[in-house]
Amino acid sequence: MFKVKVYVTLRESVLDPQGKAVTHSLHSLNYPEVSDVRIGKYMELTIEKSERDLDEVINEICSKLLANTVIEDYRYEVEECVPQ
Amino acid sequence: MFKVKVYVTLRESVLDPQGKAVTHSLHSLNYPEVSDVRIGKYMELTIEKSERDLDEVINEICSKLLANTVIEDYRYEVEECVPQ
Repeated sequence: MFKVKVYVTLRESVLDPQGKAVTHSLHSLNYPEVSDVRIGKYMELTIEKSERDLDEVINEICSKLLANTVIEDYRYEVEECVPQ
Repeated sequence: MFKVKVYVTLRESVLDPQGKAVTHSLHSLNYPEVSDVRIGKYMELTIEKSERDLDEVINEICSKLLANTVIEDYRYEVEECVPQ
């Protein structure tokens, strides 16, 4: 069994209005030291062992469903879990 | 200048209908090996050096604005950036 942590972020060149809104809210809440916020997604997948190659499966899942690769980048980390 | 990566996740005991929907979609897309998905948020904050304590500022920001601590947990990583 594997625990896969997927991070999806907007590409650098893409504007992030949600992040800008959070930055403005933080300035209103008296945190002027926060100069920028970028919002992304974080997902934890539990994947059972199968005959297919794990990295291939994760890349397919990310590009088909979890990330929009036109405007987003993704990266992931795999942890193997030992069942108790 | 600091780059702060904030990860917000639903607490273990809280149901995640969005994650369940993604799990079902993945099963329909022929990935039966994915047994569970939990959805969270990922944020990158750029924080300038100030007189206030950085960890204190981040904890205040997370608990006031970025995470709902009743149902969510957060963790963060700090990286110091050297301006070029």
